[in-house]
Amino acid sequence: MKLVIGNKNYSSWSLRPWLLLRQAGVDFEEIPVSLFAPGSAEQIARYSPAAKVPVLIDGSVVVWDSLAISEYVAERLPEKRLWPADPAERAHARAICAEMHAGFANLRSQLPMNATAVLPGRGWNVAVQRDVERVARIWGELRERNAARGPFLFGDFTVADAYYAPVVSRFATYGIHLPDAAKAYADFILALPSMQQWIAGARAEREFVVADEPYRLAPERADAIIIG
Amino acid sequence: MKLVIGNKNYSSWSLRPWLLLRQAGVDFEEIPVSLFAPGSAEQIARYSPAAKVPVLIDGSVVVWDSLAISEYVAERLPEKRLWPADPAERAHARAICAEMHAGFANLRSQLPMNATAVLPGRGWNVAVQRDVERVARIWGELRERNAARGPFLFGDFTVADAYYAPVVSRFATYGIHLPDAAKAYADFILALPSMQQWIAGARAEREFVVADEPYRLAPERADAIIIG
Repeated sequence: MKLVIGNKNYSSWSLRPWLLLRQAGVDFEEIPVSLFAPGSAEQIARYSPAAKVPVLIDGSVVVWDSLAISEYVAERLPEKRLWPADPAERAHARAICAEMHAGFANLRSQLPMNATAVLPGRGWNVAVQRDVERVARIWGELRERNAARGPFLFGDFTVADAYYAPVVSRFATYGIHLPDAAKAYADFILALPSMQQWIAGARAEREFVVADEPYRLAPERADAIIIG
Repeated sequence: MKLVIGNKNYSSWSLRPWLLLRQAGVDFEEIPVSLFAPGSAEQIARYSPAAKVPVLIDGSVVVWDSLAISEYVAERLPEKRLWPADPAERAHARAICAEMHAGFANLRSQLPMNATAVLPGRGWNVAVQRDVERVARIWGELRERNAARGPFLFGDFTVADAYYAPVVSRFATYGIHLPDAAKAYADFILALPSMQQWIAGARAEREFVVADEPYRLAPERADAIIIG
């Protein structure tokens, strides 16, 4: 399989299927695209008719959108049990993924993923706080219920953990205060070797994307300043 | 099964699983909620932790979000083949549903669903047109490929048809010009008895929701004017 992804520092949508494949132990090829850079739109359009990252390529099958990719990978590798086995739990996992996929507008716009930045306090407002509290409730309830089964939301790793991983990154970047259960989960996800590998990749990037940087000026070390 | 839905005139997210269940021939109970009306938020919160419609209730299983509901119904009723049987086609169907679920922001904000209204020309701009062209390309390519197999996007009815049904309604309301293949598909969906039944339900409603009505003044016949 091949996975077309955007900048590791900024592309929250790319992190989701990347982490899913890594945690599933799949050997895949990364095709990185520097988002908003000259020619990047044409590069992505060669892979996906929706002209957005991420895109998964599996032989002649091309799947775009992180959620459709997750469903495809879960079906393709049933032995990895990437959704919970119980139908009610599976429905719950899909509901919280879908909620993330189309919702949390305040959190997403005010706290854009910026995996290597340290920006405590920036972007926070009351609308963001409502989103934070909803996420903390989702994590807290699941961890309380499933603690005995393992350290992930549903005990074992599932798509839902991959889906909320960019939120873990955001909460770290913006220094968001969380209740204990949610904080313990966020710390655990952030410390995963796969997550640390993604962040190390982000550190190696040298693009500063202005559209994703509402709170910083471009540092001198940036090799490219992309308007976006 | 029970389905909690919002106003038929306005709630595009509710139409999707409603049409899916109707087309699948499922006998279900409707629980209508008048969105934004006093007490409606509390009413929805009784069913769903995400506090949004639609919500599906199947015994002790509660599923929220139209996409998670669709996956649940498709799994629960495998004999209805609500996703295409072929893995590559199924991935394609999921990709276009996910694209709709999280995308088409211009189309969704500028042309809000208003199933009974006739508002040709309103809301259109160049960004909307890009979304319209992407939808027309999705429909046109699938209809061209699958015409011999049946009148729906993948021949037989699937979740993808339910997912794009609110867009069909929007294009009719706002008089959007479409290429022939896309127009033929839109006309076909609009004429479905299930779709006409939904629209008749919308006609019977008497709430005028200001937040969903950027282009009209409240008519005198409205029994309730809801700010939203």
